[in-house]
Amino acid sequence: MKRAHIVYCHPEPKSFVGAMAARARASLERAGWQVTISDLYAKRFNPVASVEDFGSRGNPEHLVYSLEQRHAREHGTLAKDIVDELEPVLASELLVLAFPVFWFSVPAMLKGWFDRVLLSGTFYGGRRVYDRGGMNGRKAIVLTSLGGREHMFGSDSIHGDLTTGMLRHIMQGTLGYVGYEVYEPYVAFHVPYVTEEARREMLASLDQQITALDQRKTFDLPRLGDFDEQFKPKGSQTSEQPCQ
Amino acid sequence: MKRAHIVYCHPEPKSFVGAMAARARASLERAGWQVTISDLYAKRFNPVASVEDFGSRGNPEHLVYSLEQRHAREHGTLAKDIVDELEPVLASELLVLAFPVFWFSVPAMLKGWFDRVLLSGTFYGGRRVYDRGGMNGRKAIVLTSLGGREHMFGSDSIHGDLTTGMLRHIMQGTLGYVGYEVYEPYVAFHVPYVTEEARREMLASLDQQITALDQRKTFDLPRLGDFDEQFKPKGSQTSEQPCQ
Repeated sequence: MKRAHIVYCHPEPKSFVGAMAARARASLERAGWQVTISDLYAKRFNPVASVEDFGSRGNPEHLVYSLEQRHAREHGTLAKDIVDELEPVLASELLVLAFPVFWFSVPAMLKGWFDRVLLSGTFYGGRRVYDRGGMNGRKAIVLTSLGGREHMFGSDSIHGDLTTGMLRHIMQGTLGYVGYEVYEPYVAFHVPYVTEEARREMLASLDQQITALDQRKTFDLPRLGDFDEQFKPKGSQTSEQPCQ
Repeated sequence: MKRAHIVYCHPEPKSFVGAMAARARASLERAGWQVTISDLYAKRFNPVASVEDFGSRGNPEHLVYSLEQRHAREHGTLAKDIVDELEPVLASELLVLAFPVFWFSVPAMLKGWFDRVLLSGTFYGGRRVYDRGGMNGRKAIVLTSLGGREHMFGSDSIHGDLTTGMLRHIMQGTLGYVGYEVYEPYVAFHVPYVTEEARREMLASLDQQITALDQRKTFDLPRLGDFDEQFKPKGSQTSEQPCQ
């Protein structure tokens, strides 16, 4: 049975993002997925990367966080809360992130989940990034909400393009970087200001889109084959970068 | 006397980013600035936005974090750790952020500083964004370190442009959004892998660049005058968006 894991992060338990996560879970289960969910606020997940994450240290004198992640994973001395978050991600073909956009990014608690759970060595390392990353062959999708309106985003809009601009650090720099094929995100705009009816319509649309996930467009990402050993482009330019 | 405030965030007290923050402080003081510093890890800053940030609630039934920020600020019921971080920022003409790049963004602890300290109403709100944001007329600069090499960033590189791409959510979406004029960041590349001599040269270069800060290039940002009441572009396109 295909496994999907939802990482849900919102400070309000009755949030619309929570309703989106619940609807996505129901849609996936109806489509035959086995779904697990990690509710970061409910478990008061600790987002702070620190020396306390490592029961043993490769270098007790100076912390290079990514090197200690490798050391602790190899020696089985990672903090238990990290291991608990790690296992369902490694067991799942699909990762779903459900969060409200705070400062054109994820809330700090979910950022800390990236910092602490996406281990160097396991998810990426050396040339094991993008289509050679640890999660290569798996898929990821972002479900998010915004206060802003849809016309505020796009190539000639005030905030620029949402997925290739403001959220590039997540779509490409995090999910894509570790090897996921990244679906176009589901974005609920203007959520605090719309009617209950509009929210019901957004959830119905989400349900339809999750049900048809295998036909969904994916985000254009760099391919390692286009770059040399030093990550320098082999050709004069690459097609993956929209900012030229 | 001009005031500058440095927000420093790194899990290793002896980090190179810490040396960058200390050198920047010395350079600014030599140039006549009064400098304060907030060492987020030293004070174990709490990055988690939650209901616990508000001594009183405008809406006790459902948390909309930004609305409760306005309510708590107006009623003087914001959590003390937020108020303590807020005051030096509001008193300073220059904000300096010193952090290592984690996942093409800030560490979660600094992301939580954005989430909790950059209050709705005080820093932004309605059409009070970008050149009409609360910090309009003030300057900000990012000092950061990366494991990657400089050639990995740029318009035709594997990760795309650093400041207009991966870090756009910070340069434009956070610092620019609240009204700061944002200097080009100081980026120390490949730090974990370079010699002590190379690090000394980077600190000397940082010192020179901070001393000449008033001649430093600033980041191109949207101007509200180019957009209508609904933030729709007045012209056919705007010049602020490099991604067309």
